[in-house]
Amino acid sequence: MTKRSVTMSDVARQLGISRSAVSFALNNEAQVSRETRERVIAKAAELGYRPNAGARALAGQKTDLFGLVTDIVSTPFAGDLIAGAQEWFWGHGKSLLIAGTATPERPDARSIEMMLEHRVGGIMIATTWNRAIDVPAALENVPVVLVHCFDALGERPSIIPDEEQGGREAAQMLLARGRRRIAMINLPEDLVAAQGRRLGFEKALVAAGMAIDPASIVTSGPEPDSAYDVARALLAAGDIDGVFCANDRIAMGTYDAARDLGLRIPEDLSIVGFDNQETIAKYLRPALSTVALPFREMGRRGAELLTRASEDIDRKKIVISCPPIARNSV
Amino acid sequence: MTKRSVTMSDVARQLGISRSAVSFALNNEAQVSRETRERVIAKAAELGYRPNAGARALAGQKTDLFGLVTDIVSTPFAGDLIAGAQEWFWGHGKSLLIAGTATPERPDARSIEMMLEHRVGGIMIATTWNRAIDVPAALENVPVVLVHCFDALGERPSIIPDEEQGGREAAQMLLARGRRRIAMINLPEDLVAAQGRRLGFEKALVAAGMAIDPASIVTSGPEPDSAYDVARALLAAGDIDGVFCANDRIAMGTYDAARDLGLRIPEDLSIVGFDNQETIAKYLRPALSTVALPFREMGRRGAELLTRASEDIDRKKIVISCPPIARNSV
Repeated sequence: MTKRSVTMSDVARQLGISRSAVSFALNNEAQVSRETRERVIAKAAELGYRPNAGARALAGQKTDLFGLVTDIVSTPFAGDLIAGAQEWFWGHGKSLLIAGTATPERPDARSIEMMLEHRVGGIMIATTWNRAIDVPAALENVPVVLVHCFDALGERPSIIPDEEQGGREAAQMLLARGRRRIAMINLPEDLVAAQGRRLGFEKALVAAGMAIDPASIVTSGPEPDSAYDVARALLAAGDIDGVFCANDRIAMGTYDAARDLGLRIPEDLSIVGFDNQETIAKYLRPALSTVALPFREMGRRGAELLTRASEDIDRKKIVISCPPIARNSV
Repeated sequence: MTKRSVTMSDVARQLGISRSAVSFALNNEAQVSRETRERVIAKAAELGYRPNAGARALAGQKTDLFGLVTDIVSTPFAGDLIAGAQEWFWGHGKSLLIAGTATPERPDARSIEMMLEHRVGGIMIATTWNRAIDVPAALENVPVVLVHCFDALGERPSIIPDEEQGGREAAQMLLARGRRRIAMINLPEDLVAAQGRRLGFEKALVAAGMAIDPASIVTSGPEPDSAYDVARALLAAGDIDGVFCANDRIAMGTYDAARDLGLRIPEDLSIVGFDNQETIAKYLRPALSTVALPFREMGRRGAELLTRASEDIDRKKIVISCPPIARNSV
């Protein structure tokens, strides 16, 4: 790793074009012109660019050390993601070192450097929220697997939850209970999770022959106090018998709003959450029916993919389904 | 670090006595006989033992990399501890690498080895629960600071919360509200936290001129479902107007029990929790008055102490106070 190999960014810089244009060209994708493609290929050959050079260099040597760069170590969420990754690595005689970071785009340079000096077999990048990230330039030539996030260019393998399927199953839990006046309290709609969960929710209703009333889909902040106000207004205004809350903390606030309006759960109102958050879902009374964000499974699959980095980790987007967890709120 | 220096364990092994006996002898403490002390000192000199050899070797060289060995990365608790440590290290131009572990006594050997190869300035060991631990043998000659835990021999500096002061302040919140028929729902009494919190609680009541009724101190598992049953029995049986719950999850179960018995919080019953757990305390309705476990402060102080390892980290036990957080449940 001391002598730096030629990267796509080097090729891009020399040609005065974007790195993504180089990526498209080298991967024979349609987004660039034939002329650009030819210039890129010629320049790449001239500079001695080899695709995935870092990965190939590493593949030749056995390494049992892996890295995780993540912002979740300092949050109360997603400890299961680390647990799942650790279980895989430790169970296969491998070690994992974690570098906490305020944002995955800007990890601590010295920690990354140390991981690279030790020729880690690869680095997992994991985020608290499902979102698009830019893989840091320092990791350009290192095998990387993204977990609970993805790169906009789709160049890196990533493990993401099936938000849409989860939203669909949440709605189906309410439909199966015979609920027909169903609302959704969504997260802010710029979130990937909010978009996917809503899409699944709407598709399930349409598949059941129901119309989507835009007034029945409202937005809340991610926390119970914000959700309480939104839920209270929603429930007071409408004749609603089922609510899909886009996360368990929203469900927590909705429980309190329902209670204060004299609505019994689940007799008068069925509630489904999302996340299966450890410190909330099973402890609400009644225990919350929800859809699990499969953090442990995502961590495990990410680790598995990374340890097989030399074989085939190119361009895979692995979507993990979000299992419904039936408890007592529907 | 390649040529291993002589440790207290080496001295102990040669003499066929325990490592703690060697420690007591070398530190001139009363627990060993004069004869043993003299044998230990002679053998230590013969083998070339130097106290804190690793720490001194490291002190001579500047290093900006530190390690954290902890079981909390895979739990929903204590992310603030890591946040506090990171803030200190990053704010002082230093880096932190984290090795998750199922138990701090048995960390992953390869991760530790790699930290030592990089001559980390020191290693912080942090635990999810406040408890005594054995520092792993591999770290015997490395500067170590224990956070939210301590070693039974008191040889390592440690940062621990003032459980007793926290328990006292919890009781005082109830007393200040005029409550006089006060119960405590404690954690299992083998926990350090349970012992300290109860002691502080009892002292506060005694200081207020009240007798301790043993029947008013009951034990629950740490989670809301267990606490619900305990709280319901306690509240149904007695004429109680205030409850100190030894953690916020117990308070969560107590809220539900009170509600099901028709008791209003805080009009009929004042409740104080402990931990100030992020996903619970401020989101209960009414918001929970509690005592904070100062995770962020403990992480910060641990990092601070570790970066000053060469100066003076011997035998300090730093006790951090647990601040009361007044909300709406008292």
